[in-house]
Amino acid sequence: MDTKTRIGIVGYGNLGKGVESAISQNDDLTLTAVFTRRNPAELKVHSGVPVLPLDDIESYVNDIDVLILCGGSKNDLPEQGPALSKLFNTVDSFDTHAKIPEYFEAVDASAKPNGKTAIISVGWDPGLFSINRLYGESILPEGATYTFWGKGLSQGHSDAVRRIKGVKGAVQYTIPVEAAVDKVRSGSQPELSTREKHTRECFVVLEEGADAAQVEQAIVTMPDYFADYDTTVNFISEAQLKEEHAAMPHGGFVIRSGKTGESNNQVMEFSLTLESNPEFTSSVLVAYARAAYKMNKNGETGARTVFDVAPGLLSPKSAHELRKELL
Amino acid sequence: MDTKTRIGIVGYGNLGKGVESAISQNDDLTLTAVFTRRNPAELKVHSGVPVLPLDDIESYVNDIDVLILCGGSKNDLPEQGPALSKLFNTVDSFDTHAKIPEYFEAVDASAKPNGKTAIISVGWDPGLFSINRLYGESILPEGATYTFWGKGLSQGHSDAVRRIKGVKGAVQYTIPVEAAVDKVRSGSQPELSTREKHTRECFVVLEEGADAAQVEQAIVTMPDYFADYDTTVNFISEAQLKEEHAAMPHGGFVIRSGKTGESNNQVMEFSLTLESNPEFTSSVLVAYARAAYKMNKNGETGARTVFDVAPGLLSPKSAHELRKELL
Repeated sequence: MDTKTRIGIVGYGNLGKGVESAISQNDDLTLTAVFTRRNPAELKVHSGVPVLPLDDIESYVNDIDVLILCGGSKNDLPEQGPALSKLFNTVDSFDTHAKIPEYFEAVDASAKPNGKTAIISVGWDPGLFSINRLYGESILPEGATYTFWGKGLSQGHSDAVRRIKGVKGAVQYTIPVEAAVDKVRSGSQPELSTREKHTRECFVVLEEGADAAQVEQAIVTMPDYFADYDTTVNFISEAQLKEEHAAMPHGGFVIRSGKTGESNNQVMEFSLTLESNPEFTSSVLVAYARAAYKMNKNGETGARTVFDVAPGLLSPKSAHELRKELL
Repeated sequence: MDTKTRIGIVGYGNLGKGVESAISQNDDLTLTAVFTRRNPAELKVHSGVPVLPLDDIESYVNDIDVLILCGGSKNDLPEQGPALSKLFNTVDSFDTHAKIPEYFEAVDASAKPNGKTAIISVGWDPGLFSINRLYGESILPEGATYTFWGKGLSQGHSDAVRRIKGVKGAVQYTIPVEAAVDKVRSGSQPELSTREKHTRECFVVLEEGADAAQVEQAIVTMPDYFADYDTTVNFISEAQLKEEHAAMPHGGFVIRSGKTGESNNQVMEFSLTLESNPEFTSSVLVAYARAAYKMNKNGETGARTVFDVAPGLLSPKSAHELRKELL
């Protein structure tokens, strides 16, 4: 490797820490700095790189090849994506599915006139799962696509439970229904309701004096989050929550079931089994940071998604090596 | 859809028939003609398109946007790939892994100076499996990749059995060893020998008077093909061979098992369960034919592989639709 691609991290939560760790697994990449809105003096990063105030980031345009934006989709990225892609090549994990078209346009309007490349919505869903939905329907146009999530910890649903009065702490697991998965894998293309695809399991710590029955009722009837699912609620102690539910596993499947010829069933499946959801998402972000820099050097500027990135761009290997070793 | 992309097929075996059928599943594509080295008058094609002598193909350069080469990797493609990519955009399923770099250079030398785009080695292995090996090692650089094939009918191994003296007919199935697959899925990254990964099962029809024990011995000791595997040989009647072993199922798995962070196991898996191996390969070829034409219109000429093709190019949908519907 001649020159390493220089990466900057914006935001140092679970995702930022995961990116830092993933960069250390890639010899062709190097971490330049972590940028934060917190007081940099109070932030200690594992790799020992400089921690700098986000407000000063403009001074570093010549020191960083790609910025990985590790903030949240709700409050951070809608502002940071468009602002930072004016100055840097960027990669982010914007995951509010319904707002992706709008976010794409905003980032494109920033990146393109400034000659920057910004890959948005990178991770596993949106991300690798999206790619597999696309491969599935493009290769088997007559068929049905099924996405199952879990077993895994859902941050959004855990947060929703925590907001209920009387709840001190909580985690929520999304669990695919095995019978439904098996039916899909068989090639039978079943129609499945929301309730038939996933169940939800909550582990809840109550505030002192809270009414368990009331809390349970508030959970299972919560519209959008739980009302359409079979939900189990387990009450546990604070100690149990810490000991048994601190990990962040996740995963899932994308299955495309189609027919070809007279009536042959063809099933494609992509699945993930992750012990750490944020660390895996970070690893995907880092591979796409490599691609963003290559695309920028090739003159491909503006906003992009995983659909626009040729697989070979993710690898540190040359096209010749890839053909020889992996094809 | 305004104008349909016009496809030509070269060669009308299992793969050519599968391509014809797959084109009929895609509204934005149309089949123009089938080219053959046989006597066109004797070839009846399902869709009723013109069947033309391969020798006349030069007259059709203005009538076809992409040619799909459906010949074999041993004798047909090494000649047809370089010859036809001088005149047409092409897609083929060249699958002699060891010779891919050499074949790529030969096709590139034809296609590039003539402004044509030629995507080689398209299908599922090489093809979709290769892409998943690449995604796996790029996203999880610390880990191991495992490819399992089957349960499926292997043409090469069936042919090898048929060449043995005393064998009238035969099929061979490659079967992944379930215990090995489970070990890999667990994230333990085992080292597996050839024998530990797959078993082989043969169904053989003997010539009259042939010695079963001798045939069995010839099979199980055959170097490269069977000697390194646990092989089962079943003798059956010709009627049984026709009734029970006429289908061409196949499939397999690519599993990447890696570690991130302190020591979290992350497992990515891509699998195929195919009732018709040639029809599925054909479906992949057709999606890449769409991509080849788009790339050619974008000025991307020369030889390419699946590693060079952004996923979005495989779809008839616009980039905007893809972001909205599939991301």
